Amino acid sequence: MINYMPAPEADVVVSSRIRLARNYSDIPFAPKMTQTHADETIQRAAGRIAGSAQANAYRLVYIARLSDAERKQLVEKHLISYDLLNYKDRAAALISTGETVSIMINEEDHLRIQSLLPGLQLEKTAELAFQADDILSGGEPFAFDARWGYLTSCPTNAGTGMRASALIHLPALTNVRKMGQIIQAVGKLGFTVRGLYGEGSEADGNLYQISNQVTMGRTEEDMIKGLLAVTDQIAEQEREERKKLFDADPDVFTDKIMRSVGIMLNARLMDGKEFMKLYSDLRLAASVGVIDAPIAGIDQLMKDMQTGSLSVLAGRALNDRDKMILRANELRSRLPEILNSDQ
Amino acid sequence: MINYMPAPEADVVVSSRIRLARNYSDIPFAPKMTQTHADETIQRAAGRIAGSAQANAYRLVYIARLSDAERKQLVEKHLISYDLLNYKDRAAALISTGETVSIMINEEDHLRIQSLLPGLQLEKTAELAFQADDILSGGEPFAFDARWGYLTSCPTNAGTGMRASALIHLPALTNVRKMGQIIQAVGKLGFTVRGLYGEGSEADGNLYQISNQVTMGRTEEDMIKGLLAVTDQIAEQEREERKKLFDADPDVFTDKIMRSVGIMLNARLMDGKEFMKLYSDLRLAASVGVIDAPIAGIDQLMKDMQTGSLSVLAGRALNDRDKMILRANELRSRLPEILNSDQ
Repeated sequence: MINYMPAPEADVVVSSRIRLARNYSDIPFAPKMTQTHADETIQRAAGRIAGSAQANAYRLVYIARLSDAERKQLVEKHLISYDLLNYKDRAAALISTGETVSIMINEEDHLRIQSLLPGLQLEKTAELAFQADDILSGGEPFAFDARWGYLTSCPTNAGTGMRASALIHLPALTNVRKMGQIIQAVGKLGFTVRGLYGEGSEADGNLYQISNQVTMGRTEEDMIKGLLAVTDQIAEQEREERKKLFDADPDVFTDKIMRSVGIMLNARLMDGKEFMKLYSDLRLAASVGVIDAPIAGIDQLMKDMQTGSLSVLAGRALNDRDKMILRANELRSRLPEILNSDQ
Repeated sequence: MINYMPAPEADVVVSSRIRLARNYSDIPFAPKMTQTHADETIQRAAGRIAGSAQANAYRLVYIARLSDAERKQLVEKHLISYDLLNYKDRAAALISTGETVSIMINEEDHLRIQSLLPGLQLEKTAELAFQADDILSGGEPFAFDARWGYLTSCPTNAGTGMRASALIHLPALTNVRKMGQIIQAVGKLGFTVRGLYGEGSEADGNLYQISNQVTMGRTEEDMIKGLLAVTDQIAEQEREERKKLFDADPDVFTDKIMRSVGIMLNARLMDGKEFMKLYSDLRLAASVGVIDAPIAGIDQLMKDMQTGSLSVLAGRALNDRDKMILRANELRSRLPEILNSDQ
């Protein structure tokens, strides 16, 4: 039996992320980088980690040496970006045990330090990123300009080089069609809200990512405080809508959710799109107490049911039907344990 | 744990029924009957049973003394007809323990002797009806004409006075849209096929009743043999179509069925129409071995989930929402036991 730790505001917030863009001042930036420069960046970053107290907490991964499924899995877990796959030959990543910190090497910038924690805990998440930042700089400053701050390949990332974001689960606000209004409102405050997979399209699993639009002109601390405040506010609205939906007709609310649970526990074929819908219902059920299951376990299940992770699990390339079968099988074998977990 | 006896051909045939129309020759037939005559019919029938070895095997039920829910339940169980409710004040029924035989009194004929057994066992079912027939006649002949046979209120029932029928579950033949063709073909052989609830409409739960169209010109034995043969043939076609459907894509076949099981095990609200669809899937699952559950238990559940039975269970009149809740609750509490039954 796995014991899942409850995370702050996990009823609405899936995870908190911080991303810092950093470049070594004595190595040409990515657009002008040769393979030799790329290798040097990897060696330097890996060396700094190896020379630190955290030496054993990271593994170095060369993107070129991974299978397609493994690459896809890293993207699904948000440990690397889709973009990193465009630079397969020069790209690498340092990934921490527990996968809370990952450092992409030779994407658009030399280093993209990313940290990820469950629930809404942006400050703690930022601490992790800045710890890695300190180690990687090795005491020397990264490319930095007194007026512009950290320098980056693309000027939209310059300044703090920081992107803070929260992944939020908004089934009730989506259901009552308030997301358009919210996206507009938070846009005016300098934050962007997007569906988990791609902009514009309806969010899979009712998951949205909220992040700061600009990286310059405010301190990292202020940006994080601002994001925390606006995320808190959206979470509160979501809770209110959930309560309204539940109170309007508890039977209908519970029936819809439990049917989804029943399908997850019994289906023999399930595609990714349907899974995300059912996951959303399951997460909502656990959040409002209709079922007694750890949200962290449900979120872990969600990650593991993505196509890359399924292929890694199978140890081979899977066709669409194979994936549907494996996803359904995994759900039937794993969901009962999650539903019976002690919280 | 209930132990369910498997019935012959229960994979396709839900039940076998025989109905005999009988009238006492010295009491005016139903259209000319007074209340005094009606009472006499009841007294005579009940008296004949009371004076027989089966005295303790029957209970006498006066329709006027039942609640609406109890009346509806008797109709749902096919122990009485809807028509009997049109004669509430004069109508009664003798119902055997185990409800295999019921004798409607003062419906369109003085007596309508009905017997019902699970699966395809028309001959054994007929034996039960004829046993009751012998007891009820009390050694004196019922209204009988040497040329026309048993006399009945409506000439379409005269002759043998017998209607033999089988209730059959045809999800695969319905699915491949072969029912129209079958209904036409068996019509030419003198049999009628109808959806369980009403003619013409799509059959609820893919249940159809096949019965002899005419009651005259052939012996009871021949009629039963004919019905047995044609039912056997339809059952065989249904099995072939099931196999084809399964073989065409076992995953899709199993997935559809198991989702229905999952919904039955988890829903909080369920209306009767949806229930019959899910019941059909569940019965098919058990019949083809996708799940290991006794068909008799599934059929019993189906009867108990009808609205009259639910109201009787609740002990009060239920509104539509109440029924949906109670049906879902009953399914969640009873279905797991059926799914874990020894066969």
